[in-house]
Amino acid sequence: MIYLDNAATSFPKPSIVAEAVYKQMTEVGGNAGRSSHQGGLQSGRILYETRCAIAELINCKDPLEISFTLNATEGLNTVIQGSISAGDHVVTTSMEHNSVLRPLVEMESRQVTHSIVWGDREGQINPLDMKKAIQPNTRLMIINHCSNVTGTVQPLGELMKIAREHNLLVLLDASQSCGSLPIDVEALQIDFLAAPGHKALLGPQGTGFLYINKKNKIKALKQGGTGSRSEDLHQPKTIPDYYESGTQNIHGLAGLKAGILFVLENGVDHIHAHEKKIMTQLWEGLSVIQGIQLFGPPPDGCRGSVISFRGKNLDVNQMNYALDITCGISARAGLHCAPLAHQTMGTYPEGTIRFSPGPFTTPEEIHLVLAGVNDIMKELG
Amino acid sequence: MIYLDNAATSFPKPSIVAEAVYKQMTEVGGNAGRSSHQGGLQSGRILYETRCAIAELINCKDPLEISFTLNATEGLNTVIQGSISAGDHVVTTSMEHNSVLRPLVEMESRQVTHSIVWGDREGQINPLDMKKAIQPNTRLMIINHCSNVTGTVQPLGELMKIAREHNLLVLLDASQSCGSLPIDVEALQIDFLAAPGHKALLGPQGTGFLYINKKNKIKALKQGGTGSRSEDLHQPKTIPDYYESGTQNIHGLAGLKAGILFVLENGVDHIHAHEKKIMTQLWEGLSVIQGIQLFGPPPDGCRGSVISFRGKNLDVNQMNYALDITCGISARAGLHCAPLAHQTMGTYPEGTIRFSPGPFTTPEEIHLVLAGVNDIMKELG
Repeated sequence: MIYLDNAATSFPKPSIVAEAVYKQMTEVGGNAGRSSHQGGLQSGRILYETRCAIAELINCKDPLEISFTLNATEGLNTVIQGSISAGDHVVTTSMEHNSVLRPLVEMESRQVTHSIVWGDREGQINPLDMKKAIQPNTRLMIINHCSNVTGTVQPLGELMKIAREHNLLVLLDASQSCGSLPIDVEALQIDFLAAPGHKALLGPQGTGFLYINKKNKIKALKQGGTGSRSEDLHQPKTIPDYYESGTQNIHGLAGLKAGILFVLENGVDHIHAHEKKIMTQLWEGLSVIQGIQLFGPPPDGCRGSVISFRGKNLDVNQMNYALDITCGISARAGLHCAPLAHQTMGTYPEGTIRFSPGPFTTPEEIHLVLAGVNDIMKELG
Repeated sequence: MIYLDNAATSFPKPSIVAEAVYKQMTEVGGNAGRSSHQGGLQSGRILYETRCAIAELINCKDPLEISFTLNATEGLNTVIQGSISAGDHVVTTSMEHNSVLRPLVEMESRQVTHSIVWGDREGQINPLDMKKAIQPNTRLMIINHCSNVTGTVQPLGELMKIAREHNLLVLLDASQSCGSLPIDVEALQIDFLAAPGHKALLGPQGTGFLYINKKNKIKALKQGGTGSRSEDLHQPKTIPDYYESGTQNIHGLAGLKAGILFVLENGVDHIHAHEKKIMTQLWEGLSVIQGIQLFGPPPDGCRGSVISFRGKNLDVNQMNYALDITCGISARAGLHCAPLAHQTMGTYPEGTIRFSPGPFTTPEEIHLVLAGVNDIMKELG
């Protein structure tokens, strides 16, 4: 099997990830913050060490600004539901995932409106268009750092400058970038960043985090037991307890810690350079196969490890099925939960096939993939 | 180490649980509902099979009525925030966990009020008191099935009858019962049931579920990618997609499936009978140690596997520390995130020490525990 679906979930993970989860599950009995016995304390340490690893990765000064979530979607919902209220307006981009678009549509019922800034055919947002979309009541800007459809990376620095000029809060959706592109929340002065643990951070599914700059107080999505201030019927205001109700995924987070340590040891720059090399091979190889249409930016600039393409006159699902069954290639066809990104590229409603290599993808695998695509195009195209 | 903190998180788990997680993490690349390749399909099957196992356990006819959550707290929040609105009133009990009490206090800001029905000194709710607390605008009854502090089991049948007479929705918090006490949502006509995966279901942390009888349509806590109807900017109404946004904890749920299959194979009745035997040994042994005060109902009736106690004139944290350090016993001291339950018992604000045996606790361990408590009482009491 050749796995090119790292944008859905990374595979394989470094072996230390599953080993760390196994070890935590079989050797440690306890729940973080709930019990002061050895196992409870060790569980608490795992959470703290995972926070520290994330903080190091994104250059956040205080690890307590990191809250754990089930997935990136939960973090995005926390900010969208918790930082704005009736009468507020949000600006965002056409490259967003449904994890941003659907909460925004839902917020219309709470009298929160939004404007969508459309990217060019490669998914790139023009900062001037973003500026024009800002209204007097705009409070929040949501930016998709790296598209899960095209790998397009937005001009963060310029967008942040505009946001600061207009005193907007900024939520960065780093679902497709955290772990494979450098991010510095301090330097960029980002307010909120949501990311999953199971993609480029190479951790288990069921993990994710939300960075909330502590100058921002937003409403938590849930209330419940925190193991702290048990006597208080109000949710404790201390962070990260305020945002973390109920037992956290300590078993999974032990694995996430291992995944992030792998990323830190190898270096984001090194991982990005590897993926860029693979992407260039893939892009160049696909571009010379007759009947293949490529979408999104070419791999020479800064972009994520995602390629969208389709075979002319060929149903994307049929082609994806052939890739899986006849070539053993795992990819994803369709709209990738990002319908407006496909409208931006002109590939709506049929969508594309997406190849998303990861840190373990080899040039030999890409060689086989290109041969497989070539064969399918000859046979079916 | 003798682990008596199963009410915080169960330990050990059956070996198949960590093995199932490890296997899923190392052998299957894919994300359920996101990709149609082999790994994506296998991931989807894991979710469905886990739903089926839960449905069998609680006698729910349609596995799609089961949604996955990060923990029980998320399920409780989903119902509390999503099933009632301004002007509504909720009735609940003094035995609730902060995962019910704190969301209810938060709902006061949305003009939702609540009344707390106090239990007797053993934590038992009198159904007549519950009946008296119902107001014309009462819409939801929340019942703690089994107390995490005293093991008290509420008279579900009688409470359900009252709820039906008053046309109330009923949310059962089965955090301390699901997997160790029989539950039949069909027979009881329960509307909602929330439970964690990492306690008596013997699954990993970061798993939980919410049963929503499909006759009830409530508002989801989050919106986002569901892998379904990608073109629709509104959250799909189909269940369970409507309630499950973003990547689920498939790795963890593979383990939860294994844990529930263990429970089903061994039988809830058998597990309950084992725990009852252990509890009786523990209760009887503690009751003859001088200076030990026991709280909650004696172990002869139907109760959960939790005992609260303290040593006369002895600080509970000091005693718990001695249990951990000198005897290697893992227990939990304090208020157990259930302050009103301690007020009910008369153990507020100092709390108690809680012993919570599990399916793997042996009579030999309890023998050692009793000797340890005896020694500590002699030395410190």
